[in-house]
Amino acid sequence: MKNPMKNIMLTIEYDGTNYNGWQIQDKAQRKKGGRVKTIQGVLEGALFNILSARVRLISSSRTDSGVHAINHVANFKSSTTLKPARIKEALNALLPDDIAIKKAEEVDSRFNAQYDSASKTYRYRICNSDYISPFIKKYAYHFRQPLDISLMRKEAVALLGRHNFRAFMSACRGNDGELRRDCVMTIKRLEIRPHKSGLIEIIIEADGFLYNMARNIIGTLIEIGRGKFSPGSARYILRKKDRRLAGPTIPAKGLCLVEVKYGRGNAHF
Amino acid sequence: MKNPMKNIMLTIEYDGTNYNGWQIQDKAQRKKGGRVKTIQGVLEGALFNILSARVRLISSSRTDSGVHAINHVANFKSSTTLKPARIKEALNALLPDDIAIKKAEEVDSRFNAQYDSASKTYRYRICNSDYISPFIKKYAYHFRQPLDISLMRKEAVALLGRHNFRAFMSACRGNDGELRRDCVMTIKRLEIRPHKSGLIEIIIEADGFLYNMARNIIGTLIEIGRGKFSPGSARYILRKKDRRLAGPTIPAKGLCLVEVKYGRGNAHF
Repeated sequence: MKNPMKNIMLTIEYDGTNYNGWQIQDKAQRKKGGRVKTIQGVLEGALFNILSARVRLISSSRTDSGVHAINHVANFKSSTTLKPARIKEALNALLPDDIAIKKAEEVDSRFNAQYDSASKTYRYRICNSDYISPFIKKYAYHFRQPLDISLMRKEAVALLGRHNFRAFMSACRGNDGELRRDCVMTIKRLEIRPHKSGLIEIIIEADGFLYNMARNIIGTLIEIGRGKFSPGSARYILRKKDRRLAGPTIPAKGLCLVEVKYGRGNAHF
Repeated sequence: MKNPMKNIMLTIEYDGTNYNGWQIQDKAQRKKGGRVKTIQGVLEGALFNILSARVRLISSSRTDSGVHAINHVANFKSSTTLKPARIKEALNALLPDDIAIKKAEEVDSRFNAQYDSASKTYRYRICNSDYISPFIKKYAYHFRQPLDISLMRKEAVALLGRHNFRAFMSACRGNDGELRRDCVMTIKRLEIRPHKSGLIEIIIEADGFLYNMARNIIGTLIEIGRGKFSPGSARYILRKKDRRLAGPTIPAKGLCLVEVKYGRGNAHF
């Protein structure tokens, strides 16, 4: 008799510095050369060693090259007899130092980490001072010019809610069909938190993110904060739906996936 | 006319993971092989590029291989016409990502970072839980067994004050004459701070530290906390002055030099 299928949900933490993002790359992309070590690839490799069978991870998010996560959620199905706690332990023994499994839980068979997510929250860190500590350098963007936080906050309000965020979407990468996606998303939270240390944290929660959307929005807020874009820019750029009007895509290393929410209606609750 | 000599004090922060400690190694040690990249070596190399002259750094501390620092103090003398702020800026442009200069100040010509220090404070981090984050793995010792914090605190009291700490000194390394040193030191502070996250921070401040003294004391406190050493052990080991009785030298990566104090009587105040 075959063992029944289990649906296992993983909560994953990683330092993305040395990875080419979450998603396993296809052969065409790999042929272009460059870094091809991905979080998904390393995890699926470790799972193959533990389960002696190939599994495919379904992921809440497709983080970019260099982006970090403290609570990335993914799930997979397997007929393993191993308990989730044992899977967690085995994975943590096999995984490299920069990836760790925080939680492994058995969930309802219908749960899908990608489709069931109600919102994802990212945190962006800017070190807004003359000096950046070696302990934060890999996790924050060092931006020395003074930023007008209250102006940034005022402009951020225009981005809250349901809008077409095409202006904040970078060009589609390869054949992944990104450009065909609906560009209407809902930003539920956009907070700018300056700390005494000079660190500025920007928290952005949305029901979905277009390619580079978080980094382009924060890049735009920085242009506003340093006075390069005039007040009212955020609303204007949003309305024009033109990527060329928005700010630059700021460095990946400041970005971290901090939370994925699954609503009460979701199967695993 | 020759420029007058300046005495420049540097406050240095570094991630010691990839270094063989602070001190430049002599030829005999280098011949033995192994890692020879040192903080002092990298700093003096960068200073040579900036000043076009060799300088020798005088250091408050000689941190071991793998030990970190957030406020390491050192000084050097130079006839440069560069202002301290410019030296800081030039050093930070040249130094690798894991070393940074927090401050560069001109101080009294008599100031000596080694001899004038009144106390040094180290922090040791233990991750006392099932799970260790990839972001803390390089900076904390992962110790899973439960620790009795109140017992550790009680025992720590026996170590406070002026004592002969020979029992907590590791064997002398090579020809540096460590064993001939006076083993009488004063521990001014020894605090154990558990955090909700499972992280335990141990703060130890003393007027001086013998070779591996901080790590051997904390190794002993862990043996007490996990019940391997009985209550009263700290006082007993101290009195016996026998290294073999004390706990193990725990991993360097948990240790960080957090503060060097210079008394009011010191020249640069």
